[in-house]
Amino acid sequence: MQLYNYFRSSASYRVRIALALKGLAYEYKPVHLAKSEQFGESYGAVSASRLVPLLKDGDATLTQSMAIIEYLDETHPQPPLLPADPLGRARVRALAQDIACEIHPLNNLRVLRYLVRSLKVGEEEKNRWYRHWVETGLETVERQLANHPATGRFCHGDTPTLADCVLVPQIFNAQRFECRLDHVPTVMRVFETCMQLDAFSKTQPSACPDAE
Amino acid sequence: MQLYNYFRSSASYRVRIALALKGLAYEYKPVHLAKSEQFGESYGAVSASRLVPLLKDGDATLTQSMAIIEYLDETHPQPPLLPADPLGRARVRALAQDIACEIHPLNNLRVLRYLVRSLKVGEEEKNRWYRHWVETGLETVERQLANHPATGRFCHGDTPTLADCVLVPQIFNAQRFECRLDHVPTVMRVFETCMQLDAFSKTQPSACPDAE
Repeated sequence: MQLYNYFRSSASYRVRIALALKGLAYEYKPVHLAKSEQFGESYGAVSASRLVPLLKDGDATLTQSMAIIEYLDETHPQPPLLPADPLGRARVRALAQDIACEIHPLNNLRVLRYLVRSLKVGEEEKNRWYRHWVETGLETVERQLANHPATGRFCHGDTPTLADCVLVPQIFNAQRFECRLDHVPTVMRVFETCMQLDAFSKTQPSACPDAE
Repeated sequence: MQLYNYFRSSASYRVRIALALKGLAYEYKPVHLAKSEQFGESYGAVSASRLVPLLKDGDATLTQSMAIIEYLDETHPQPPLLPADPLGRARVRALAQDIACEIHPLNNLRVLRYLVRSLKVGEEEKNRWYRHWVETGLETVERQLANHPATGRFCHGDTPTLADCVLVPQIFNAQRFECRLDHVPTVMRVFETCMQLDAFSKTQPSACPDAE
């Protein structure tokens, strides 16, 4: 397998975690988003969406981090990244989507660029925008985790799932932009539990071959 | 089952389509987003995230439209809304996420409000923002559909899937904001095929009990 990704892309980091949890080897193919390499000719030949991450598995091309992780879980079932019961699966997917659909899309590099270039938003206002979506979005995640009987050492039970694969990269982003995190103690407790595992710590942005 | 939703919420519409495709009856519970009913006490007792849609199935509470649709597909398998093969499933999920993670989150009511209230963006600039993400995002979807061997009468094959449940509401939004759509002919061909089915047409925003 070949994973096209960028060290700082949190959607890429989600897939690196899942691959590591599954113990799957892959070739690391860097695509430098900040230098706009995703719009270049060579990446255009690989990717119709020009987004990362992208996974090549034999002849197949897979896109969208959550879809890639579900594919990995279906084709390499051990250890499972989704619970066996439909309600548990729905809870894990919803937690992942609370981040991947409600927080992360607003703070993508291309969105921040639009704010600055087209809407002429200043640095301070841009950072306030960033923190607003992270802080309010994580508060929603906190409400879903705190006091829910299914929350365990991880977001759902005592082993990592898709939800943890999505949560951890979002916390890295939050820390990089100095967001408030003292209002989400359950989120941070789960984050710290995850970071004790190699699958999360050894795939983090600063450990990537293309890290700056 | 009870579906908490808002006629104009495209995430709500996705779930209405899936329920209709499955032939499942449900009670329609309106939550008026434009009047901020989701922040009121009565909805707070139902929803931790204060987002719609939310599905109650017996004692269970389900959130996030794509997670709800997968749950419905697992608990009521006929007709299937995801293909049987892992690669097909990954393609359908990725198409859904190309819309649900890349287009829709940027044009949510709460995001438009932030643009206007906090960033003091004018009406025209707000509409340009809206159209930018819809038009570029649908172009990405078009590239994934056009000339792909798995594209059929619908996004994937000749029966509707999760991808169609997510695509159709996005086109309704696009039309409401007068976005360009002439550059996405395959998308529009699939949209029109979908709209010939009752499951799509009879659940559309203007047909909802709370429509204005």
